[in-house]
Amino acid sequence: MNAPIHPDHLLPQLNLRDTPTALIDALKARFGERCSTALVVREQHGRDESSFAAPPPAAVVFAESTLDVADAVKLAAQHQVPVIPFGVGTSLEGHLLAVQGGISIDVGRMNKVLSINAEDLTVTVQAGVTRKQLNEEVKSTGLFFPIDPGADATIGGMSATRASGTNAVRYGTMRENVLALEVVTASGEVIRTGTRAKKSSAGYDLTRLMVGSEGTLGVITEITVKLYPLPEAISAAICSFPSIEAAVRTTIQIIQLGVPIARVELIDANTVRMVNAHSKLGLREEPMLLMEFHGSPNSVKEQAETVQEIAADQGGNAFEWASTPEERTRLWTARHNAYFAAIQSRPGCRAISTDTCVPISRLADCLLDSVSEADASGIPYFLVGHVGDGNFHFGYLIDPNIPEERRVAEELNHKLVTRALALEGTCTGEHGVGLHKMDFLVTETGNGAVDMMRTIKRALDPLNIMNPGKIFTL
Amino acid sequence: MNAPIHPDHLLPQLNLRDTPTALIDALKARFGERCSTALVVREQHGRDESSFAAPPPAAVVFAESTLDVADAVKLAAQHQVPVIPFGVGTSLEGHLLAVQGGISIDVGRMNKVLSINAEDLTVTVQAGVTRKQLNEEVKSTGLFFPIDPGADATIGGMSATRASGTNAVRYGTMRENVLALEVVTASGEVIRTGTRAKKSSAGYDLTRLMVGSEGTLGVITEITVKLYPLPEAISAAICSFPSIEAAVRTTIQIIQLGVPIARVELIDANTVRMVNAHSKLGLREEPMLLMEFHGSPNSVKEQAETVQEIAADQGGNAFEWASTPEERTRLWTARHNAYFAAIQSRPGCRAISTDTCVPISRLADCLLDSVSEADASGIPYFLVGHVGDGNFHFGYLIDPNIPEERRVAEELNHKLVTRALALEGTCTGEHGVGLHKMDFLVTETGNGAVDMMRTIKRALDPLNIMNPGKIFTL
Repeated sequence: MNAPIHPDHLLPQLNLRDTPTALIDALKARFGERCSTALVVREQHGRDESSFAAPPPAAVVFAESTLDVADAVKLAAQHQVPVIPFGVGTSLEGHLLAVQGGISIDVGRMNKVLSINAEDLTVTVQAGVTRKQLNEEVKSTGLFFPIDPGADATIGGMSATRASGTNAVRYGTMRENVLALEVVTASGEVIRTGTRAKKSSAGYDLTRLMVGSEGTLGVITEITVKLYPLPEAISAAICSFPSIEAAVRTTIQIIQLGVPIARVELIDANTVRMVNAHSKLGLREEPMLLMEFHGSPNSVKEQAETVQEIAADQGGNAFEWASTPEERTRLWTARHNAYFAAIQSRPGCRAISTDTCVPISRLADCLLDSVSEADASGIPYFLVGHVGDGNFHFGYLIDPNIPEERRVAEELNHKLVTRALALEGTCTGEHGVGLHKMDFLVTETGNGAVDMMRTIKRALDPLNIMNPGKIFTL
Repeated sequence: MNAPIHPDHLLPQLNLRDTPTALIDALKARFGERCSTALVVREQHGRDESSFAAPPPAAVVFAESTLDVADAVKLAAQHQVPVIPFGVGTSLEGHLLAVQGGISIDVGRMNKVLSINAEDLTVTVQAGVTRKQLNEEVKSTGLFFPIDPGADATIGGMSATRASGTNAVRYGTMRENVLALEVVTASGEVIRTGTRAKKSSAGYDLTRLMVGSEGTLGVITEITVKLYPLPEAISAAICSFPSIEAAVRTTIQIIQLGVPIARVELIDANTVRMVNAHSKLGLREEPMLLMEFHGSPNSVKEQAETVQEIAADQGGNAFEWASTPEERTRLWTARHNAYFAAIQSRPGCRAISTDTCVPISRLADCLLDSVSEADASGIPYFLVGHVGDGNFHFGYLIDPNIPEERRVAEELNHKLVTRALALEGTCTGEHGVGLHKMDFLVTETGNGAVDMMRTIKRALDPLNIMNPGKIFTL
């Protein structure tokens, strides 16, 4: 799926440092075959789902323990060489690109669920456990982990980018759901942040400083997250609307009324077409809300009735229900594959993803103008959104060999972000800043706040070896 | 209520710095009568609800705007003099004590609700707005702010200590409910963290770094918090139990079953007696759970039935209901006054408050042994708890003129915290570290994590002027 590197995709942030042979030798001595310098392995670890490209890292270390990670970081620190943590490579913002050279530490083999505390609704996992694996392993307890960014990402990667996804409207994001972390710091020391207590006022909130720090302050090696009782009743429904506006206005009312809806996803007509083609479905090719209700049977019924009423007022069709687990899985899998469906709709394309999030009352203003602009541009796109949170994604499907398409897509993105910020929103609801939103971050939060981030970075990583060149320039 | 200073209460952390006359002169020139050096004013700002005492600050500045705060901090920075933010003085951990000298900045006059965004369920306030004032001002919107630490604290102070209280079991703590802050940094610069978007992955989570930083990283001047729709139905109920253990086991089951209870408070028999005496109530003098249910009428009914069943299994009496707003207010006021009721039960006493919080499955283990120890000690105490969160407070009521009582109380506290940490809990669920839990913090989180906090502190406050001597020694 990755196009060959075109000079235009090399980023201005590229500032390659040398990796001394002595470091590679030391890593090979410590890790044996678990340190690879094979080009194919390095290339696989040097890219992600973003549209950017950079030369691959100099080596990949396959860590099997926290000690492995600590030792690899210590060696890298000795040689002042960058370290980039790698989970499964589903980042959308270039987080994994070795823009300043260095080594990749793959935590994928650190995939043990360490302790399930069902009575306390917590579980502690190694960083390489993926969200699907986690849910498989806790299934027998009657609990589940709701955070769901679509891709089967690792819990480590999801923590590092402060991920969320379709269930966040009810269950929150990684910000709300990580209780504690084990982190390897820039000097290779292992620290723990937080306990299994549900709340704490014990000093600075290092847990939440690390959550969303994108690998720039340390490598997350263990995570304790909250679990939730599987709802007694779950119902999923599809509702088609005459316009995107009608679907959005329905969403706004649902949230303002305080309906505890578990999922409310917007898919535009065009994206429904792509999903139908990819997942062999026969969904009505109109703007659609895909919803899920969790609770007691009574509560689910109450919620659904309220929402049906609101939707009908906006011209929405009668709900189509997916009540069996199989039907629900098929629907949500189709939703999660929207990204891949879109990519396949234009062979050889890359997606430039947007990720704005605005206060719910501003959602219609932000979204509708951006749809008009995208339509006028002629660039094919998909549009999906966790609209209950005010968060939505355009994916502009560009031909990476046509620089003009990239320029137009970036211009659309720029207009969208500018609009979202003016509406008191954020440039990134869940993907992170990575390489692509550094300028937006400054516009959003101001130089003072970004300078504070830089000061923290310099203090905790004085050699600037932890995933350098991401979030901000130093 | 404040006892005269006894030499034993002066803390080992006392490390007074001089405040140059030139600073006082500059503050008077800038603030006129809003800079006070009157002893009575300084004394009022140099203590809190803790049992500790220190000499008062050298001056108090009454800030009326963010610019006032910034200017005061800049002047203090020029003279390398400590700055201690002051809300209403309800801290329990010595946060407000000028243990290294310096000036107090009182933000109580910064008490404007700046913007209510009812459609987005957010509100932005100045730091000096109190929680009761906030609820009064948003009342007409049909929304409320649930965080409720008992005292009518300021939103600024509640943010600075990561406060929570009785509603946290359902609505979370300040950690989950602060969306964005305006902060005056140690150099007097004004920064903003966060936007009004419900979620964001835009760089380091400075909001949550500041929440709970106890004034040591900056002065919080504005806060954007979440609001919630007033529940359609609210019911409060009291249930008495034959033992604390039965009440605690009931709570554990409520939480493990996922009942979305809004409040579940434990009050031991002894404290019920104190509350009856203070609030002229006739509550049964047995261990009691004071509960509240929020939701649709159906959901409230469902929740109450489930809880009643669990309680009955544990020997709980039939619920006594408080259904009218007036009855509810009377009950919760009595609960919130438990601290003052206890203080009045022993004239001249001071309370040493504990604040451990453990995973819910460990609650009985942690609490019951500590009750036995407290009973055996002969020190009068009160016991209340936000038990749904695994958080409870002993208040050991010591005579400040009898050093032996303080020693025994501290020993009880030490045993309790040691037990809570062994059970994977925290030394402070909601009060903060302040002066009193520095050693516990190191035991809880390890030297590595505390060193990381120190590194952040040194980087963001190189002159060590922001509420120095709190959380950790530098």
